[in-house]
Amino acid sequence: MRIIIIGFGNLGKGICRAFVEKADFLKKVHGLVPRVVAVVDEFGAVVDEKGLNLPQLLKTAESSRTVVKYKGGKRGKLALDVINEVSADLVFELTPTNIRTGEPGLGHIKRAMQAGKHIITSNKGPLVVAFKELDSLAKKQGVEFRYSASVGGAVPVIGLAKKLLSGNEISEIRGVLNGTTNYILTRMSAEGVPQEIIIREAQELGLAEKDPTLDIDGIDTACKITILANSVLGMDAKLTDVKVVGIRRITPEATRLAQEAGQMIKLVGIARRDLLEVSPKLVPQGHPLAVGGTLNAVTFELDLAREISITGFGAGPKETSSSLLGDLIDIHHSLGG
Amino acid sequence: MRIIIIGFGNLGKGICRAFVEKADFLKKVHGLVPRVVAVVDEFGAVVDEKGLNLPQLLKTAESSRTVVKYKGGKRGKLALDVINEVSADLVFELTPTNIRTGEPGLGHIKRAMQAGKHIITSNKGPLVVAFKELDSLAKKQGVEFRYSASVGGAVPVIGLAKKLLSGNEISEIRGVLNGTTNYILTRMSAEGVPQEIIIREAQELGLAEKDPTLDIDGIDTACKITILANSVLGMDAKLTDVKVVGIRRITPEATRLAQEAGQMIKLVGIARRDLLEVSPKLVPQGHPLAVGGTLNAVTFELDLAREISITGFGAGPKETSSSLLGDLIDIHHSLGG
Repeated sequence: MRIIIIGFGNLGKGICRAFVEKADFLKKVHGLVPRVVAVVDEFGAVVDEKGLNLPQLLKTAESSRTVVKYKGGKRGKLALDVINEVSADLVFELTPTNIRTGEPGLGHIKRAMQAGKHIITSNKGPLVVAFKELDSLAKKQGVEFRYSASVGGAVPVIGLAKKLLSGNEISEIRGVLNGTTNYILTRMSAEGVPQEIIIREAQELGLAEKDPTLDIDGIDTACKITILANSVLGMDAKLTDVKVVGIRRITPEATRLAQEAGQMIKLVGIARRDLLEVSPKLVPQGHPLAVGGTLNAVTFELDLAREISITGFGAGPKETSSSLLGDLIDIHHSLGG
Repeated sequence: MRIIIIGFGNLGKGICRAFVEKADFLKKVHGLVPRVVAVVDEFGAVVDEKGLNLPQLLKTAESSRTVVKYKGGKRGKLALDVINEVSADLVFELTPTNIRTGEPGLGHIKRAMQAGKHIITSNKGPLVVAFKELDSLAKKQGVEFRYSASVGGAVPVIGLAKKLLSGNEISEIRGVLNGTTNYILTRMSAEGVPQEIIIREAQELGLAEKDPTLDIDGIDTACKITILANSVLGMDAKLTDVKVVGIRRITPEATRLAQEAGQMIKLVGIARRDLLEVSPKLVPQGHPLAVGGTLNAVTFELDLAREISITGFGAGPKETSSSLLGDLIDIHHSLGG
């Protein structure tokens, strides 16, 4: 399969590393030979329709911080042009999230669909801003459109709902969907240390962004709740429909009191047809949502199976490549491969 | 889709109830109209190629304990003959498990495959005795063969591994796979009451069989580990390959000591290419396998996603119909429906 990768940060590099390390497995088990014919980053692009040498490309990108330095790389070459000009089956859209405009990912995805190319993305921006439009465009153009990595990182939340619980009506989705806030709350509870100190340490460890506002204030979780509402519950939800309270007002004292009562404070997102909400909630210890550290967890309320929960790592380039690769294999098989 | 149901105990009745209650949902969301053209129980069969009236059939079966009393029912009519004679797309094999011979389920499944009919089963017996043979026969005959309900009840353990974690190499599967023993251990730990008393109460509540040996001695879990080893890890494992220790020697004292150390005693099954084992193990409180009551839980060790766990109800006719119906919808879609 001929693949274009747009965005070559941690996730773009992560999926390429998986292609290199798992080449034998992908060929033997799934009959899949991924051929990366173009990679675009913020500085430009490199194209080779015979397939790029990924180990060399990864080396170049790590030493010089851009793929442009790779032989044949073109500074200033735009993603939209590469999508149009390069012959390929599928585009990975892995640029950073912008939740207000969805750009530049939104434009990349539309252009790819219009060009008849399948799309796999981890980018929450386009999904939050224009889910219905993209979903319709994919159907109209007859292309596959997958976004497993946008919610839950390595945890296959959307696939579980859509593929494995298909006989159920889902009445509610509840989730701990942000690893950064979960890490902060877990450490506050264990050590009684104020939030600001843990945030600073988390930033040093690379577990929190320089500007952690989107995580701390619950906006990242609200984006994921919006995506789940639209893709799993079939709603037409906007980010502004989600009532959001973040974790800023949670004190170490509050986490201690919760713990003494056999509870944990978690930032929980809820998606129901009559309620979209993100807020700190008490979760009993031993409940599937009472996961620690950077773990994510999601519980589905169902008419037949009653309650199914899934847990795993919600971030990390290697972990997330599990979802990106899962989408790719699924598309490969659905095309008869 | 024209369906034959073999076995009309709790699961057979459960899936028929789901067909009745969810007829609109199945048609609207999945374009699926299940038409049950024959039902066979231990006394005989009832056939109607135009489709049986399920509410009436359920009523008859509940009042007279057999479908034979339904109009047109034939006492002594054999499942093997119905499978041969009745024109249908798919057979649900839901007879009781026999882990030594696999019969009568094994014969039913083979006959259905030979007749070109797709198979969905919850029956561990045939899967434990003859997995490779059945898997090969299904491929040779070009029929779909699904058995989600055989492991984990409502928890889609096999589907998660095969469909959603397909980019990963699975190095180990660990699971709490038997609701009865989990209920017993949970109550021993909470109440300090001896095993025999809880077993008697569980029998009265319908949570344990009259002869609970297969559960208590870990054999049921070992069957599920064998099925996972064969279907998910691609091994050629037999039940006798599993080292099994049950929970008989666990005392209330042991569960109390574990709890004081922040641990829980769980009957854990392990499937790895170099080890198949069932035995009581200490699991830290807060770990995804530390689930209480009749819950089941499974953790996969993976090369990309590291660790993914799933939890839910491992038994119950309504809960298990979630897996049976999921298999049916999946086959329906894979046939282009």
